[in-house]
Amino acid sequence: MTQVYASTELSTPTRYRDRTTYDKAAVHAVLDEALQCNVAFIRDGRPVSLPTMLARDGETIYVHGSTGGRFALLDGEPICITVTLLDALVLARSWMHHSVGFRSVVAHGEARVVREKEERLAAMRALIEKMHPGRSEQSRPPTAKEDAATAIVALRLETVSLKTRGDHVADEESDLGGPYWAGTIAVSTQRGQIRPAPDLAEGIALPDALECRGAG
Amino acid sequence: MTQVYASTELSTPTRYRDRTTYDKAAVHAVLDEALQCNVAFIRDGRPVSLPTMLARDGETIYVHGSTGGRFALLDGEPICITVTLLDALVLARSWMHHSVGFRSVVAHGEARVVREKEERLAAMRALIEKMHPGRSEQSRPPTAKEDAATAIVALRLETVSLKTRGDHVADEESDLGGPYWAGTIAVSTQRGQIRPAPDLAEGIALPDALECRGAG
Repeated sequence: MTQVYASTELSTPTRYRDRTTYDKAAVHAVLDEALQCNVAFIRDGRPVSLPTMLARDGETIYVHGSTGGRFALLDGEPICITVTLLDALVLARSWMHHSVGFRSVVAHGEARVVREKEERLAAMRALIEKMHPGRSEQSRPPTAKEDAATAIVALRLETVSLKTRGDHVADEESDLGGPYWAGTIAVSTQRGQIRPAPDLAEGIALPDALECRGAG
Repeated sequence: MTQVYASTELSTPTRYRDRTTYDKAAVHAVLDEALQCNVAFIRDGRPVSLPTMLARDGETIYVHGSTGGRFALLDGEPICITVTLLDALVLARSWMHHSVGFRSVVAHGEARVVREKEERLAAMRALIEKMHPGRSEQSRPPTAKEDAATAIVALRLETVSLKTRGDHVADEESDLGGPYWAGTIAVSTQRGQIRPAPDLAEGIALPDALECRGAG
């Protein structure tokens, strides 16, 4: 199995090509770390981009929605799924070189609405596990009615790239002796306080998996 | 001045209309809190969504790019700018009711590439201030050459909506007595460690504004 995605015109950024990689493992790592993505599609001749959760299973990204929603109508349509992890604010000596440290995956392809039962269930499980590892065993799987109300959309990872910028400050040589401070501020998405539902039945303890990962 | 955006077909979500507001102040608050957005456009008949920083000035969103990049070509094109703040993971008793607490703005319109000097400078200042308040005074403004290399794209806030979901758990009545734990995990974007550039000239202190906001 090849370790990189093919580089095509569609997956080649216009700018900063040296920040771009097609390495599968690196792409997977970003997709797996990110909780959310944007799904872009065309509707009535206009671009629409909507946020949603994502999960990856092998070489496929899965998102879900209601069968009454827009994702359910995307079968065969061109879509673009974008995932961005913001890692740092880069405060340079010049306005021009202010920047951010980030990792961003852009994946193009044709959406596929998933019909097959086993793949649907695996995708739903992956989405639940993405919220918290172990969660699919610690909650009730869908009934037939719930399953029928859920649209699962798949995008095969083929035309995909990862653009990365680290958190270095890259000022002009001529600014280095200037009067301005420069540096970086780390940015991260943090999981914080865990709050049990107010109507939680008595005697139901916090699952272990949550206890040890709550602040993580 | 009216306090709400007009609701149009384009700005009406297909699902959960009761979670949608057109209140200007609420929309502004989300745009101001978010560091990044996604800009979606159409290129060669395909949707493309790219992440970037955003700033708001009154009723206009500004993003920027290189004059050699794709944003510079968007003048007059339909675009969709999407901003999402993830606030919580909602772990329900059923897979079906797992959800997230979020605030998301979707803004549609025609992009305008900004040419006028004062508006360009104000937009750049707003983008720099977004990274850290006070930063535009604590770094060097663009030279004519740097200015010429920067594309500024504006989107007027007209066809815009804010969708919000709080962090409540909304399980089926029949699941409440079941064996599963339910609750929420707060999620937030945090600014963390501040690191001065390794080549910072001696005697240049951390600006006060950074000192008191570093962990915020």
